[in-house]
Amino acid sequence: MLGFRTLVRDALIEDIGQGDITTNATVPPNVRCKARLYAKQDGVLSGITIFRTVFEESGAEIADWYSLEDGTQFTSGQDVALFSGVTRCVLAGERVALNFVQRLSGVATFTAKFVAEVEDLGVRICDTRKTTPLMRNLEKQAVIHGGGANHRFALFDGVLIKENHITAAGGVTNAVTRAIKGTHHLMKVGVEVTNLAEFDEAIASGADAVLLDNMSLDDMREAAERAREHKVVLEASGNVCLERLRAIAETGVHVISIGALTHSAPAIDFSIEIANV
Amino acid sequence: MLGFRTLVRDALIEDIGQGDITTNATVPPNVRCKARLYAKQDGVLSGITIFRTVFEESGAEIADWYSLEDGTQFTSGQDVALFSGVTRCVLAGERVALNFVQRLSGVATFTAKFVAEVEDLGVRICDTRKTTPLMRNLEKQAVIHGGGANHRFALFDGVLIKENHITAAGGVTNAVTRAIKGTHHLMKVGVEVTNLAEFDEAIASGADAVLLDNMSLDDMREAAERAREHKVVLEASGNVCLERLRAIAETGVHVISIGALTHSAPAIDFSIEIANV
Amino acid sequence: MLGFRTLVRDALIEDIGQGDITTNATVPPNVRCKARLYAKQDGVLSGITIFRTVFEESGAEIADWYSLEDGTQFTSGQDVALFSGVTRCVLAGERVALNFVQRLSGVATFTAKFVAEVEDLGVRICDTRKTTPLMRNLEKQAVIHGGGANHRFALFDGVLIKENHITAAGGVTNAVTRAIKGTHHLMKVGVEVTNLAEFDEAIASGADAVLLDNMSLDDMREAAERAREHKVVLEASGNVCLERLRAIAETGVHVISIGALTHSAPAIDFSIEIANV
Amino acid sequence: MLGFRTLVRDALIEDIGQGDITTNATVPPNVRCKARLYAKQDGVLSGITIFRTVFEESGAEIADWYSLEDGTQFTSGQDVALFSGVTRCVLAGERVALNFVQRLSGVATFTAKFVAEVEDLGVRICDTRKTTPLMRNLEKQAVIHGGGANHRFALFDGVLIKENHITAAGGVTNAVTRAIKGTHHLMKVGVEVTNLAEFDEAIASGADAVLLDNMSLDDMREAAERAREHKVVLEASGNVCLERLRAIAETGVHVISIGALTHSAPAIDFSIEIANV
Amino acid sequence: MLGFRTLVRDALIEDIGQGDITTNATVPPNVRCKARLYAKQDGVLSGITIFRTVFEESGAEIADWYSLEDGTQFTSGQDVALFSGVTRCVLAGERVALNFVQRLSGVATFTAKFVAEVEDLGVRICDTRKTTPLMRNLEKQAVIHGGGANHRFALFDGVLIKENHITAAGGVTNAVTRAIKGTHHLMKVGVEVTNLAEFDEAIASGADAVLLDNMSLDDMREAAERAREHKVVLEASGNVCLERLRAIAETGVHVISIGALTHSAPAIDFSIEIANV
Amino acid sequence: MLGFRTLVRDALIEDIGQGDITTNATVPPNVRCKARLYAKQDGVLSGITIFRTVFEESGAEIADWYSLEDGTQFTSGQDVALFSGVTRCVLAGERVALNFVQRLSGVATFTAKFVAEVEDLGVRICDTRKTTPLMRNLEKQAVIHGGGANHRFALFDGVLIKENHITAAGGVTNAVTRAIKGTHHLMKVGVEVTNLAEFDEAIASGADAVLLDNMSLDDMREAAERAREHKVVLEASGNVCLERLRAIAETGVHVISIGALTHSAPAIDFSIEIANV
Repeated sequence: MLGFRTLVRDALIEDIGQGDITTNATVPPNVRCKARLYAKQDGVLSGITIFRTVFEESGAEIADWYSLEDGTQFTSGQDVALFSGVTRCVLAGERVALNFVQRLSGVATFTAKFVAEVEDLGVRICDTRKTTPLMRNLEKQAVIHGGGANHRFALFDGVLIKENHITAAGGVTNAVTRAIKGTHHLMKVGVEVTNLAEFDEAIASGADAVLLDNMSLDDMREAAERAREHKVVLEASGNVCLERLRAIAETGVHVISIGALTHSAPAIDFSIEIANV
Repeated sequence: MLGFRTLVRDALIEDIGQGDITTNATVPPNVRCKARLYAKQDGVLSGITIFRTVFEESGAEIADWYSLEDGTQFTSGQDVALFSGVTRCVLAGERVALNFVQRLSGVATFTAKFVAEVEDLGVRICDTRKTTPLMRNLEKQAVIHGGGANHRFALFDGVLIKENHITAAGGVTNAVTRAIKGTHHLMKVGVEVTNLAEFDEAIASGADAVLLDNMSLDDMREAAERAREHKVVLEASGNVCLERLRAIAETGVHVISIGALTHSAPAIDFSIEIANV
Repeated sequence: MLGFRTLVRDALIEDIGQGDITTNATVPPNVRCKARLYAKQDGVLSGITIFRTVFEESGAEIADWYSLEDGTQFTSGQDVALFSGVTRCVLAGERVALNFVQRLSGVATFTAKFVAEVEDLGVRICDTRKTTPLMRNLEKQAVIHGGGANHRFALFDGVLIKENHITAAGGVTNAVTRAIKGTHHLMKVGVEVTNLAEFDEAIASGADAVLLDNMSLDDMREAAERAREHKVVLEASGNVCLERLRAIAETGVHVISIGALTHSAPAIDFSIEIANV
Repeated sequence: MLGFRTLVRDALIEDIGQGDITTNATVPPNVRCKARLYAKQDGVLSGITIFRTVFEESGAEIADWYSLEDGTQFTSGQDVALFSGVTRCVLAGERVALNFVQRLSGVATFTAKFVAEVEDLGVRICDTRKTTPLMRNLEKQAVIHGGGANHRFALFDGVLIKENHITAAGGVTNAVTRAIKGTHHLMKVGVEVTNLAEFDEAIASGADAVLLDNMSLDDMREAAERAREHKVVLEASGNVCLERLRAIAETGVHVISIGALTHSAPAIDFSIEIANV
Repeated sequence: MLGFRTLVRDALIEDIGQGDITTNATVPPNVRCKARLYAKQDGVLSGITIFRTVFEESGAEIADWYSLEDGTQFTSGQDVALFSGVTRCVLAGERVALNFVQRLSGVATFTAKFVAEVEDLGVRICDTRKTTPLMRNLEKQAVIHGGGANHRFALFDGVLIKENHITAAGGVTNAVTRAIKGTHHLMKVGVEVTNLAEFDEAIASGADAVLLDNMSLDDMREAAERAREHKVVLEASGNVCLERLRAIAETGVHVISIGALTHSAPAIDFSIEIANV
Repeated sequence: MLGFRTLVRDALIEDIGQGDITTNATVPPNVRCKARLYAKQDGVLSGITIFRTVFEESGAEIADWYSLEDGTQFTSGQDVALFSGVTRCVLAGERVALNFVQRLSGVATFTAKFVAEVEDLGVRICDTRKTTPLMRNLEKQAVIHGGGANHRFALFDGVLIKENHITAAGGVTNAVTRAIKGTHHLMKVGVEVTNLAEFDEAIASGADAVLLDNMSLDDMREAAERAREHKVVLEASGNVCLERLRAIAETGVHVISIGALTHSAPAIDFSIEIANV
C-alpha cells in the first residue's frame, strides 16, 4: 500500500515531535525489552502490519516477532503479538501503534457482527465513504478483515449519482445519460433512488446499478423483482442497523452498505506490557 | 492552527484524486447552488471551521455563509450551516466535509454527557492520547467544545511516568528522580500508580502529579486525603464510564481522564442538501 | 484539478532554482512589460490554464489577460495569449510556461488528426496509460481538447485484464471470475484478448468489455458481430496509425485506443515576445 | 541523482494510487515471476536505472537482474533486461517503468541520429531547456547516452542573454555589461544574436559566448571567422533539422543546440513479458 | 530524532541540486577513497552523527568508520573521524557535512566555556529559543554536548509569560491566573519579571517559576531569598556574558539562560582530507 | 525567491507546533496590538522581508506597515519596523521573526565591516559555501545587503577544482582538462592552488580562474603579475581576517572570499515591543 509508511511517520511525529521526554529521561538509551500486545476484550484483528511498522519507524529494531494475522478472532487476554526491541523506541511508539490497532480492530470486529447475521444469504455487506480522513484505505481493509466487502474507494473510481446530482442535473434520466457519455467505457453507472418511480426511470435510462436509499422492505422486494430481468446490481443503504439487517438482506438486494462500520465502531481495548531483558 | 489546511487538502486528495467523475459528468461547470447542513439527531457542534475550509479548498467559492459556532448545542433538523457555492465543488467536497464534522461533533457530544454529570464538582474531565492518528488537535478541540479540558497534547509537552517506564527504570523513585533531573525546569513530573504504596513513593520522590490507575474509590479517597498537604495534582483514569463517573469525582481527585471521549464516540449523522439557484 | 499548482511550482523550481541569474542581472526589478504568446505553426490549443498559472506562481502579477480557450484551433502567427506582467517574472517563467503549452498542444493537435479521420463513425478515439510521468491528468485533458475521449485514468479506476494477468491467473476464465468477485460492484470487468477463441472465453466468463489486441480487421469484424448480442464494449488497440484507423473504425468496435496520442505527439513551436511599457 | 527516487514514487502513486485493482483481484499475493524487457524496434538505451528503481519502489523484491547499460544500442526483440520479482508488484509497476524507458530511450535514439551525422567534425550536439517538466535531469542524461552534450541545466547555472533580455535591458551592450557585473566570477556570459552587427556588439562588450539564432550559413561562417581572435564560444541554434545539420557544423561553430532532441523525440516501443515460476 | 534525515536530504539538495559538476567532471565514478576529518582548533564535538548521515544520504557507502563521540573534547589536528567511501559522494557531501559539524561543535565549545565557569555552583546553564530556524533540535543537543541543559523546546512545551503577554493580559496576576486555568495539569507556569514588585506579584498569583530579566545582582539575591519559602524555580536571563556569569550564579538562582550559546557561537574550523585507495 | 515561504512555515511549525500555549491561555483571541521592532545595537539590516512574511504566515493580518529597507544602516534604539496585527499571532510569530532578522542582520553587519576596509581598491569581497544548512540563499542576500558580492551558490552553478579533486584526478592538469570537456560551454573552470608551481600548471592547462589558498602576500603579488597576460580571474582565500584584509587586497587579486561572513557573524540583538490598541 503506497503512502502507508508516510502515514505512520506523520502519526509518530504528531505524538513524539522533538522527543518522548518522559522516556528519554527515565530509560537508558541502549537497553532492549520484551513486549507483549494483548486485548482486554474479544474481537477480530486488523492493523497488525501497521502496528509493526510503527515500531520499525520509531527505531525499535524489532526482533523475535510473533503475531496473529489480520482477520483472526482473538479473546480477551490472548497474546496478539510478542516481540523484542529497543526499550526507548518501543515506549515512544506504543501509543501510536495502539491507536491504529484499537481503531482498525474495532472496525473489523463491528463488521464481523453484521456479516455473521446474514452470511448464509449471499449478500455483500460493504462499507461507504464515511471513513476517517486519511485512514480510508486502512479502514476499508479492516472491513475486509471483518469479512465484509468494499464499495468504491473514492469519487474517482466509481460512478454513483446521488440526490444532489439529480437535483443539479435536472432529473434521473439527464444525470444517467450524461454519466454514460462522460465517463470511460469500463465504468458502470450507479444511481441512488428513493422510490419505485425513480427506480424505473433509472433502469429505463440505462443505469447499471441502483442504490435503494431508505426504502421500505416491500419496495425493496419489488425493486429486486423488477431488477432481475435487467442485470442491474441492487444496493440497499440508509441507517442499516443490526436488528433490521436480515430482513433487508432477504428482500433480494445484492449489496448492503453501512456507514457505521467505519464511522461508529467502538475501539477495542489493547495494551502493551514490557519486561526488561 | 498550523498544518490544518494541509490536512484538509490531503483529505480532499484522498477522496477526489484526479476528479469527482460523477459530478464532472452530470453537473455543468459554472452553476452555483444553495447548500444546507443539518443534523438528523441532537448534539454539540465541533468542526464547523474545518467543514468550511473543505469547501474553500475544493474551489467552491463560498458566499452567504451562516453557521452555528463550535460548542453550540443543536437539535435534529436544525440549520447548522447555510451557504452558496459552485455546485461542482460543493458536491466534490461534501463527503470530506461531513466526515470531519460528523466525527468531531460526535466527540463534543459524547464529552458533554460526561461533563454534565459532574459539573457542580469542580473536577476537570479531560481527554487522553487515545486519538485518531493525525486528528489529535481537532479531536482535542472537540473535547473543549463539549466542555471538557485537555490533557498533555503529546509525548513532548508533559512528563507522565507510566508502568512500563517504572519497569524500565527499576522503580518509582528512580524514574521520578531521573525525570526531575532530565527535563526542563518548567515541567511538572507526573507518575502513574496503581496502589497506595506506590502513591506514597511517588510523593516522597518529588512527583508533582499522580495518576491513579484503576484504583478503588476508597483508595482514591485516601490518596486525595494524603495529597492535600503536598500540593500534588491527582488524576483518576482507567475505563471510566458514565455510570461510575460521579462517584470517582466525589473522591476528591482533581482530574478524570477518559479515553473513550476520542476513541469510541459515535458519529453524529449530518447531511447536506442543495438547491439550484 | 487538485495537485495542479504543486506541479507548476515544482517545474518552476526545476528551472529557476535559487534564481534566474541572467534576468536578475540584466533587467531592473520593478518594470513591467507586455507579452504575446504565438505559435509558429497551426494547431489545437491545450494547456493555456497551466500556462497562465506558471506566471501567477512566478510572481508576474499578470494583468490585461486575453487568450484563446483550450480546444480552439489556431494558425501560425496568431495571438494565442496577450498579457502584461512584471518583466523579471515573465522572463523567469517563460520557458516553463512554454514547455507545458508546447507539449499539451502537441497532444491536442495530434489527437485532432485521428478524430477527424473517423468523426462520422461514432467510435471513441481514446488515450492509454502511456503518458509522461506526473503529466497524465494534463495529457488526458489535452486528448479531450483534441476531440478524443479518455480511457481509465490509472490502475485504480478500471479493471483491464491483460496478457500478463492471464498468464499469472492461469487463463482467461480464472482471471475474469476473480475480477468480478474481487472488485467493487460498480466496476465493469475488461479483458484483453488476441484471438477469437480468447474472445469467446472472455464473453462466456462474464467480461463486460473486451480489448482486441492487434487483431486482423476480419477478426475484429467477427468479434463485433458476436459482441452485439452480449452488450459487451469492444475496444481495438495495438499500434494504431492514421493510415489504418478508418478501416479499424469500420469493423464495428466501439473504442479505439492509441498510445501515440500521448507518447509520440510532436511538440508545437510556440514563442513569447515582450515589449517594454 | 538526488530527488530521483521521489520522482519514481510520485509516478507510481499517479498510476497505482490506492491499489492496482486488476492485479490484486486476479493474481495471488506471494507468487513470483520471471520478467523480460524487450523493444519492438532498434534504438539506444536510456533509463534502465530508473526502470529498475520503479520495481524496487513498487515492492517487487527484484532478483536475478541482468540488463544492458544505458548508452548501448539494441535491436528489435533483443533482451534489454531480465529479472525475477513478486508478480503483483511487477505488474503494478510495469506501465510506469515502461513510460520512463520508452521516453528516455526515445531521446537517446533521436540524439544519436544527429550525433552520427557530424561526429567527424568536432562540434558539440547539445540539448536545450525545452524539456518535459520534472524530467529535465533524466532527459539530459538521455542526451548524453545518445552521444550528445548538455547545455546549461537551468536558469541558475548559466548566463544566456536572449532577445527579450536585450529588449528589457535596452540593448546588447547594456545587457552584457550588467551580466558581467551582476553574476559570480566563475560564470561566462553568453548572448543570443540574430545578425553580424549584434554579433560584433556582443564581442565588443565582453561576451564570452555567442548564440547565433537562425542565422544564414554565410553569416555563421563569417561569425566563426571573427570569433577566432577573441576566444569566444560560438553556438548555433534555431529549428536545426537533420538535413541542415552538417552544413551548419561545417561553418565552424563549436556547439549546435537542438530543442527537438527532448521535445519531439518519438517514444521507443518496449514491452514486458512475464512467465510464472 | 524524527525529521533528522529529511533535514540532511534538504541540505544536500540545497548544495548539490542536479549534480556536483566539478566532481562529476574530474573524478571517475566508481573509485573509493580514505577520508579524514580533523579540526584546526581545539573544541568540544557535536554533530558527528549528522555528519555521518550526510554521507549515508549522499551515496558514499561509508565503511571503516571511526569517530570521537559527541561531547568529547578534541585538540587541533586530532583525528575526529576516519572513514572510507565512494570518492564522488564523499566530495559531493563534504561541505554540507562540514557546515553541520562546524556550527554544532561551535555551540558545544562555546557552551562548555560557560559551564566550566560555574560548575561547582549547581546552577543550570541553559539555552533559549534564539536558535537557527530548522536547527533547534540539533543546537539544543549541542548545548547538552557542551555540558549545558535545555530550556523549553518551543512554544508548545512550556508556559513562560513574558512582558508582551503581561501587556496584553493587563498585568501579571491576570496572566498567571489565566495560564493556570488554561493549560494542562502537568504544566508549570513561568513568568518573566523585571523588578521585585513584579516578582512578589508573580509568587502571590501562583507562578511555579520566575524569570528575572536583566535584574541587578542585589535584586536577584533578594528574589532568591524570597523564593526559598515558596518552592519556586528562579531563572536569570538577559545578555549574560562570561565575565558576569559567576556573580549571577552566586546570587542563588537555579537556572541561567543564555541566548548567545546558540545565536553567536563562532564556528569551529574543520577540514576533510582524502587519499586515493 | 522560490521556497522562501516554505522555510518560514517550517520554522513556525518548529516553534509553535500545535499551539503557543502561553499566548493562547493569556491573550484574548480577537484583539490587535501595535508592534515595534528595534535593535539594541548599531548595524546593517537584512531579513526584513522574511521578518514580515513570518507574521503573514502566523495569521497576524498585518496592517500599518513601515520598515527600513534591507541594506540600510540603523542605530541602537531606532525604529526598524512598525506595524499592527492580531496580538495572539504577533506573539506566536515573534521569536521566529527575530531569529531570522538577528542572524541575517548579523551577516550584513559583519560583511559591511570587511567591505568598508577595502572599498577604494575595487576588489570583490565575497562569501563562500560555509553557510547554515537551508539558509544559504538568505545568507547570501545578507552579504549583498552588507555591500559584498556572491561566490557560486552551490556545487551545480560553478566549477571550482579543490585539493581533494586534484588528489582524486591525479594532478592539476588532469583535473582542469576533464572539467573543460565535462561541463557545459557557458561555464568557466576555476581551480584552487597553494603555490606558484601549481598556479602555473593551472594557467597552462586552461583554467579561467584560480583560487590562491592561504598563500603569502609575496606569492599572491607574483601570481597577480603572471595572471595579467592570461585574463585569468584571481581569488584569495583562507582564514582572511579584518587585520590582514587590506594587505591581501593590495596584492592585485580580484576577489577575496571569506567563510566567516556567514559562519561566524555574531547575531544583532533585536526586540519587539507591543502596545494594546
